[in-house]
Amino acid sequence: MLMNLATKLIASHLESGDLTPGAEIALRVDQTLTQDATGTLVMQELEALGLDRTHAEVSVQYVDHNLLQADERNAEDHDFLRSACERFGIWYSKAGNGVSHPTHMQRFGKPGKTMVGSDSHTPAAGSLGMLAIGVGGLEVALAIAGRPVYLRMPEIWGVELTGELPPWCSAKDVILEMLRRHSVKGGVGRIIEYYGPGLENLAAMDRHVIANMGAELGATTSVFPADDAVREFLRAEDREDDFEELRADPGATYDVTEHIDLSTIEPLIAMPSAPDKVVPVSEVAGEPVSQVVVGSSANPGLRDFAIVAAMVAGRQTDAAVSFDVNPSSRQILADLTDMGATTDLIKAGARIHQSGCMGCIGIGQAPATGHNSLRTFPRNFPGRSGTKEDSVWLCSPETAAASALTGRITDPRAWASENNVDYPALRLPQRSAVNRAMLTPPPDRDERTELVRGPNISSLPEFEPLPDRLEAPVLLKVGDDISTDDISPAGARALPYRSNIPKLAEFSFTRVDATYPDRATDPHIIVGGENYGQGSSREHAAIAPRYLGLRLVIAKSFARIHWQNLANFGVVPLEFGDPADYDLIDEGDELDIDGLREAIATRPSFTIRNTTKGTEIEVRHRMSKRQVDTVLAGGIIPQLAS
Amino acid sequence: MLMNLATKLIASHLESGDLTPGAEIALRVDQTLTQDATGTLVMQELEALGLDRTHAEVSVQYVDHNLLQADERNAEDHDFLRSACERFGIWYSKAGNGVSHPTHMQRFGKPGKTMVGSDSHTPAAGSLGMLAIGVGGLEVALAIAGRPVYLRMPEIWGVELTGELPPWCSAKDVILEMLRRHSVKGGVGRIIEYYGPGLENLAAMDRHVIANMGAELGATTSVFPADDAVREFLRAEDREDDFEELRADPGATYDVTEHIDLSTIEPLIAMPSAPDKVVPVSEVAGEPVSQVVVGSSANPGLRDFAIVAAMVAGRQTDAAVSFDVNPSSRQILADLTDMGATTDLIKAGARIHQSGCMGCIGIGQAPATGHNSLRTFPRNFPGRSGTKEDSVWLCSPETAAASALTGRITDPRAWASENNVDYPALRLPQRSAVNRAMLTPPPDRDERTELVRGPNISSLPEFEPLPDRLEAPVLLKVGDDISTDDISPAGARALPYRSNIPKLAEFSFTRVDATYPDRATDPHIIVGGENYGQGSSREHAAIAPRYLGLRLVIAKSFARIHWQNLANFGVVPLEFGDPADYDLIDEGDELDIDGLREAIATRPSFTIRNTTKGTEIEVRHRMSKRQVDTVLAGGIIPQLAS
Repeated sequence: MLMNLATKLIASHLESGDLTPGAEIALRVDQTLTQDATGTLVMQELEALGLDRTHAEVSVQYVDHNLLQADERNAEDHDFLRSACERFGIWYSKAGNGVSHPTHMQRFGKPGKTMVGSDSHTPAAGSLGMLAIGVGGLEVALAIAGRPVYLRMPEIWGVELTGELPPWCSAKDVILEMLRRHSVKGGVGRIIEYYGPGLENLAAMDRHVIANMGAELGATTSVFPADDAVREFLRAEDREDDFEELRADPGATYDVTEHIDLSTIEPLIAMPSAPDKVVPVSEVAGEPVSQVVVGSSANPGLRDFAIVAAMVAGRQTDAAVSFDVNPSSRQILADLTDMGATTDLIKAGARIHQSGCMGCIGIGQAPATGHNSLRTFPRNFPGRSGTKEDSVWLCSPETAAASALTGRITDPRAWASENNVDYPALRLPQRSAVNRAMLTPPPDRDERTELVRGPNISSLPEFEPLPDRLEAPVLLKVGDDISTDDISPAGARALPYRSNIPKLAEFSFTRVDATYPDRATDPHIIVGGENYGQGSSREHAAIAPRYLGLRLVIAKSFARIHWQNLANFGVVPLEFGDPADYDLIDEGDELDIDGLREAIATRPSFTIRNTTKGTEIEVRHRMSKRQVDTVLAGGIIPQLAS
Repeated sequence: MLMNLATKLIASHLESGDLTPGAEIALRVDQTLTQDATGTLVMQELEALGLDRTHAEVSVQYVDHNLLQADERNAEDHDFLRSACERFGIWYSKAGNGVSHPTHMQRFGKPGKTMVGSDSHTPAAGSLGMLAIGVGGLEVALAIAGRPVYLRMPEIWGVELTGELPPWCSAKDVILEMLRRHSVKGGVGRIIEYYGPGLENLAAMDRHVIANMGAELGATTSVFPADDAVREFLRAEDREDDFEELRADPGATYDVTEHIDLSTIEPLIAMPSAPDKVVPVSEVAGEPVSQVVVGSSANPGLRDFAIVAAMVAGRQTDAAVSFDVNPSSRQILADLTDMGATTDLIKAGARIHQSGCMGCIGIGQAPATGHNSLRTFPRNFPGRSGTKEDSVWLCSPETAAASALTGRITDPRAWASENNVDYPALRLPQRSAVNRAMLTPPPDRDERTELVRGPNISSLPEFEPLPDRLEAPVLLKVGDDISTDDISPAGARALPYRSNIPKLAEFSFTRVDATYPDRATDPHIIVGGENYGQGSSREHAAIAPRYLGLRLVIAKSFARIHWQNLANFGVVPLEFGDPADYDLIDEGDELDIDGLREAIATRPSFTIRNTTKGTEIEVRHRMSKRQVDTVLAGGIIPQLAS
């Protein structure tokens, strides 16, 4: 059978299931990636699992998200992660080494490998012919513990690229074109596979841009073939031995197909405040700009900074613009500096920030209310910048540089023609400034490191198996569309406690009902409406209420990921047999379920008793056998640890 | 009469008073410096004064303190400051241009000039033969408005330098030696004047280090002669025309004298948590280090970074150390980059941060609890780093670099001898990369800019003249040693509101009594113990309670600066005639003072009636005629605006 590349990658790692779109498959995981914002909890999960040492070929922990160190908790998170890496045999990439995605690609990326990462932009590694998927922290922990990752078999979406990008356009404009065509939902349930002659002029790091921001299409992941461009990339990184050619079989087909003629691309920009509100830059040219930020994993390459430096060299960025440069890694900053490009940026007025994600995940660089900020970032969701009423636009480095120079949104072609400038021919180094010193390898197997816990680092709480009889009060009854932000808020107050479940639990549901954490008893029940647990995938939204004694949620319906997270941490997710029965339970009612273990193990629906009102209510669940076993055990961790 | 240099500078700017130590003198102010943390209030004061345009020869507003932009308020402060600079004819140094003190020295410093700055390290400009004094924001506002600065005539402390620093020692070790000898109180009421043959080998930027950190001795300021080293510095900055030779008259004398033989200096370090807990590095060598930070106005020069780069070049800093480099200005970063030194730093593992004060004023880079952080900064007060239980040490760049390499506190001489390294002979550029584009000059006189106010920028509240009869309750009775931190807390919660007095007022006294802001009525009275208002000079501690209706404080005694600030903002500072009478007033008592205006204008002591208790209490004040007029008018601003 002729196979496209995505199917080959899946087939070569398949542990169970078949390749019918929608069917559950289990894949062997070769590499894992964690970052600091999600990693501290992953390490606590590994501890709770009693893991000795990672089972993956390569596991790497990056510190790239929270680098500002506004108080001691940040540095203590870093120390904890470093000790956990020693303990579990994981590479540790220090604060300052760089953003996980480009750094991983440079140091560890390898054609044909699978990877899961607790970061939604993990698919960037698809640029090297890897199958790389962003998942929740516990799923990464399980992969580190040697277990496969489960997913629904996606459709494979073949996108043929032909032609060559015109001057002043680059990879960012290609992925913005995909978002313009297909919106943020276009990739859901799909893997995007790029192929065709248009690839010839896209370097591996350009492909990274496209694969990275495929996350904004909602895609499971994106893949590119491992071809000469990949070989060249690995050679520049002193890793040509890791190269292996990988392509779709000639004539292989796709579930869905698409074509982009690169020569028709023009400079595009995503307007505030969604990555798919894409228009040609020329349509919005002239809007005043007060901030321009260059960097992030969505434009991480040396060329992405070098083109900006070449455009601003010998010129001054506008006096009213804050021109922020976030190097994506110290290697790229070193290369850029050796080229003389860093000097060009500084002299043109750049604020050179430390290497990391920085403003891309709202860690600093918040713009003024309502003032336009142009960023080469992947996301511009409202408020993500740290400013509640922000106005963030997403664009290519070329558009960013032209706009920084003029102080207005500017089509780089228009700027070039006004200033009589040719598209710069960049002379990038053949070899990168490879330096692994900020990547600490795991120690020898026989060493055993104690975890270094600052005062703000908890252990993962231990959870009991599900009891057979549950008599408990309904402590909270909420409406429709409760999000994981409502359940476990992020933001400057709560975020510093993401390594500290007992402390974080104090913020649970406080947006909805400030008294909940104080009232919480073990056990208790929550009643929800439609789409309970929508939004971010954070597993804190399951763990923190569970820590406070939540054992059961009865809702009209659940959002998929939170539903999984509840089961993963031993909370029973039940639905009303008849959604109208939502009205039969009030906050404060006492519910009684006798034979709960047997009920969920053997029957899709059963009744519970509202002892306060003296009524019976029919409920059901949609858990698989695997998930039922998990819930009975009190969650995956007690299940595996037992 | 033979005059030392400090006396010459004073005499040439004297507007009133005589040169007897302790007498009040008024000095003409040539230049003013503000930074963003204190500057937003200064601009509001200028607005309240109805100022048209600065009367100083040069006024410069720097944005260097708060650069992280954790939310929109930071960028909005910057926009407000920029618009205020246009309005009042002030130079604006953008975020990213650099730390005020070295940048001012490079761009505007001029021998023979006087300067006041709303930053305690303003004395750094003494390195060029200026008389530069750190004062409160309102005093800078008044200087901008063309009024003199008042101070008590200091003693002049002549420090003769002889000999030459040994290898591996530098200017920081000299000022640490001063602190070792004289403690943080040694300079109180004094100007330190350095002279003698030892100056020959101290470049202007080395002198900056010493003058800057003279603030830690408590000195009014420090001065150095304008000699060939200053000429050389100004030439490198393309400003040789601004040079004028200035020295003490040969044979001039000093009120106090001191001698340092530079050849006897060894590497020194200030232990946690005071700048005067100074010991030889060799005494504490071997302590583990988890952070090393290079930068700040206390080691801002190109050589301070270049020596570090030379030491770490081709080596790797310790894996457990966060090696943070804070360039002090973009010019210095550009020069450093052109030299190749930035590459050396990056390759050795540096996190290169944006140019600014950063961790030096607790904006980011907080270390882990109890972990040693070595910094080339001027201050290590407990908690200033952002970590409550911090362990911050102050040292030279040489000691910092050696310790970053070894992961332990290391005498650079010991490191050099172990590694067989000679003290690097730095080849610094003859000319700096002068680039004024991030310094926006004030516009022409006929332009009139409206102030740009984000939602978080208030105007300075308008205050009424003092009433003649004051019947008011005692809303708060506090004990001894209440600090301005107790009155108006800093920290991450309150600090973002420092441009917003109504909002900031909500934090007033909340450390002492959380109900005070809600209970506050206009008018009201506070009763205090000894040393009321000690600590930081922040004028917010007078303005915010005044905004809430505070009109009178009766205390056993006052700290000097807060006492001045109260009078400056129209709050009457009274002392008990008999401190034991403190016990005659309780919180909640109603006091009545009839004829208050006449009483303070004509009598040093008078009685007030406690109507609740039916008693009379004798009080007194120490205000000068000038201050009484200010208080009667409701503060300096209504006084001048009327």
